[in-house]
Amino acid sequence: MPGNTTNPLGVKITPVNVAQIPGLNTLGISLARIDYAPGGVTPPHTHPRATEILTVVKGKLYVGFVTSNPENKLISKVLKKGDVFVFPIGLVHFQQNLGSGTAISQSSLSSQNPGVITIANSVFGPNPSISDDVLAKAFQVDKSIISM
Amino acid sequence: MPGNTTNPLGVKITPVNVAQIPGLNTLGISLARIDYAPGGVTPPHTHPRATEILTVVKGKLYVGFVTSNPENKLISKVLKKGDVFVFPIGLVHFQQNLGSGTAISQSSLSSQNPGVITIANSVFGPNPSISDDVLAKAFQVDKSIISM
Amino acid sequence: MPGNTTNPLGVKITPVNVAQIPGLNTLGISLARIDYAPGGVTPPHTHPRATEILTVVKGKLYVGFVTSNPENKLISKVLKKGDVFVFPIGLVHFQQNLGSGTAISQSSLSSQNPGVITIANSVFGPNPSISDDVLAKAFQVDKSIISM
Amino acid sequence: MPGNTTNPLGVKITPVNVAQIPGLNTLGISLARIDYAPGGVTPPHTHPRATEILTVVKGKLYVGFVTSNPENKLISKVLKKGDVFVFPIGLVHFQQNLGSGTAISQSSLSSQNPGVITIANSVFGPNPSISDDVLAKAFQVDKSIISM
Amino acid sequence: MPGNTTNPLGVKITPVNVAQIPGLNTLGISLARIDYAPGGVTPPHTHPRATEILTVVKGKLYVGFVTSNPENKLISKVLKKGDVFVFPIGLVHFQQNLGSGTAISQSSLSSQNPGVITIANSVFGPNPSISDDVLAKAFQVDKSIISM
Amino acid sequence: MPGNTTNPLGVKITPVNVAQIPGLNTLGISLARIDYAPGGVTPPHTHPRATEILTVVKGKLYVGFVTSNPENKLISKVLKKGDVFVFPIGLVHFQQNLGSGTAISQSSLSSQNPGVITIANSVFGPNPSISDDVLAKAFQVDKSIISM
Repeated sequence: MPGNTTNPLGVKITPVNVAQIPGLNTLGISLARIDYAPGGVTPPHTHPRATEILTVVKGKLYVGFVTSNPENKLISKVLKKGDVFVFPIGLVHFQQNLGSGTAISQSSLSSQNPGVITIANSVFGPNPSISDDVLAKAFQVDKSIISM
Repeated sequence: MPGNTTNPLGVKITPVNVAQIPGLNTLGISLARIDYAPGGVTPPHTHPRATEILTVVKGKLYVGFVTSNPENKLISKVLKKGDVFVFPIGLVHFQQNLGSGTAISQSSLSSQNPGVITIANSVFGPNPSISDDVLAKAFQVDKSIISM
Repeated sequence: MPGNTTNPLGVKITPVNVAQIPGLNTLGISLARIDYAPGGVTPPHTHPRATEILTVVKGKLYVGFVTSNPENKLISKVLKKGDVFVFPIGLVHFQQNLGSGTAISQSSLSSQNPGVITIANSVFGPNPSISDDVLAKAFQVDKSIISM
Repeated sequence: MPGNTTNPLGVKITPVNVAQIPGLNTLGISLARIDYAPGGVTPPHTHPRATEILTVVKGKLYVGFVTSNPENKLISKVLKKGDVFVFPIGLVHFQQNLGSGTAISQSSLSSQNPGVITIANSVFGPNPSISDDVLAKAFQVDKSIISM
Repeated sequence: MPGNTTNPLGVKITPVNVAQIPGLNTLGISLARIDYAPGGVTPPHTHPRATEILTVVKGKLYVGFVTSNPENKLISKVLKKGDVFVFPIGLVHFQQNLGSGTAISQSSLSSQNPGVITIANSVFGPNPSISDDVLAKAFQVDKSIISM
Repeated sequence: MPGNTTNPLGVKITPVNVAQIPGLNTLGISLARIDYAPGGVTPPHTHPRATEILTVVKGKLYVGFVTSNPENKLISKVLKKGDVFVFPIGLVHFQQNLGSGTAISQSSLSSQNPGVITIANSVFGPNPSISDDVLAKAFQVDKSIISM
């Protein structure tokens, strides 16, 4: 069943993990299907408890991850149907549909409960907010941009 | 030995992990001392392989972490000398010196090789850069701000 | 790329594990694509180091696993395109293409090096052979059948 | 206490695991004593969660295990009193009493709950049965033999 | 808050582990602060589930651990303020305040529940006692000394 | 083969671990046979990396272990041939032959490399010695006894 991608990011994630299938508990694996509208993006995020292997089922995806300090090297690639890419555990990664039609990928994750930390939500969107002082210093920008 | 905090963030991190003491390998623990200038900030970051316990050795610190999706709840506190705070493995966290003088904290981490992913570096600073398209969509801002 | 299924079992397994991608080492996950001719069978086998999640990409599959002693209960199901099924770590399991056309499935395994023990090979096909005495007693049949 | 070996296989297994001693939970070890009538056989089986070390307490045993795909190599040996043999985790293995009198062995297993999958039960004896089609193709024999 | 060291050993241990902070459960780390009177000693002990890193906060400490059989080598050092020392998991270790004033150290331990086995309590102080026969033979002394 | 028990402790330990059988590496199990002269004692010791299950093969043994702080409770029992006893990982334990003849036990340990820390060697016998000051304070006896 195709996921509904009518949202600002243009993606729909359909997970198959221990929350959907309790019997997966302790078994160390889960899945996720992602549907992408044209231009749809899974924003930079991490899985604190899982490595992910992504397979492109349909379309063309730009994907990448960034290594940890001090290198902060972006490893990225444009993938077509049938291609496979690995996001190592804990690293920031993302996907984008580069094609003019919809795209579909399937991810396998090495935990029944991988967790998702979306950077935009965690840094700029928590409730309550992280203080503007901290964010401004961290991102070295003027405070007026942070609170936009 | 006090760390030199003359830098844009106003902090100096002195790690004691397997890179400094090879004998720590497989032993599952490491330390870090942090010196803070007034207002100094350790920007939002994660340790992909360790929980951290921070103890305030000197001064007053504002610290916090954000829970994962879908809650994205900020758990924060102002700490004084002798106080202790826990950053669970993989979650985004930060510290800031709120006092008018220097501050010092000591962190214990549950891995000899905890890793550090600084969000600002990983998302906005990698080499090469993540495409502006992805970042703009992820952070829902105009592209002109991303490339500032 | 479709696998060549011209063989007695009518299946072709295309693995993506640490033997194909050395960078998967320690990351705890791998994939396999299976192509099935009509009637094609992956014979009863175990993965000593991995749980497997199978997704049907095309066609109709009869799949199942057997619980351990003393129950020895067969859990089986007929799956169609898009269905998902879990084979818990270490248990004997199998798949069969029930459709009149080719079928395709993709498996995710919770180890970069899951291992495969095909029962027919391990019990009846090793080099050298297990003694006929042991096999006859184990399977409670006449020795003349074992050595057929 | 000697086990009663009056059964088709001629063996009696007396386990000492977490089912008998709940305090073994999480401790990662268990035992089993096996009594063998002359010719008695523990049929090919696997332990999905444990390596086993067998010590011959009395008599003469033919023992072996088979390596995984693609080698499927049988490693076997005839053991006498006091000899020790290792069955690595997950591999198919068996024992047979070659002597004219009774035999006794003691096994140590690296889990408090090792599990036992007896191949004959799992493949040919589950309830309900695996379809004859699958078994016939897997073992490349005529269906009339499978259903004997 | 300084610990009260008015006791025969001249030390006060203030733990911060899962018993004090239940949220540390599964997080794999804990702390302990130790206050030492002049001459104060933490007697030889082991942590069955943790490696320990000790930092000297104040004063001068003589610390050491002994390797396992057959070497039984003492690795010891005199530490001053700011020095760091590692006690590997499971090994017998101790600390002593060599200074004329009070001393303070902070320990980080690689478990939320490290456990403490104090040798003097475990061997000479359990309830009921280990038989004098066993202790006399073990320590190769006359029984009259054991029961002093 | 019976071990030679002509030594002050009256015991001979014959290990079967990764040092004797390299193939045990990573398999998580090992064995030890112990021969006891009448009155023979395995002195209080710990295995930092293994739980042990002991089976009495011959004779009568007094065995026990002591729980950790703060209980320090001795759990002991007199065992006869065929009895089984568990020493949980990391705890101080011992065995003594109470019979008038030789005794034999076999131990299974939940690590291929369990390690042995004999308290008498580790506390009173290391090279170099732990300072008499530390030992005297730890055991609350006069220094003249420590250095006997």
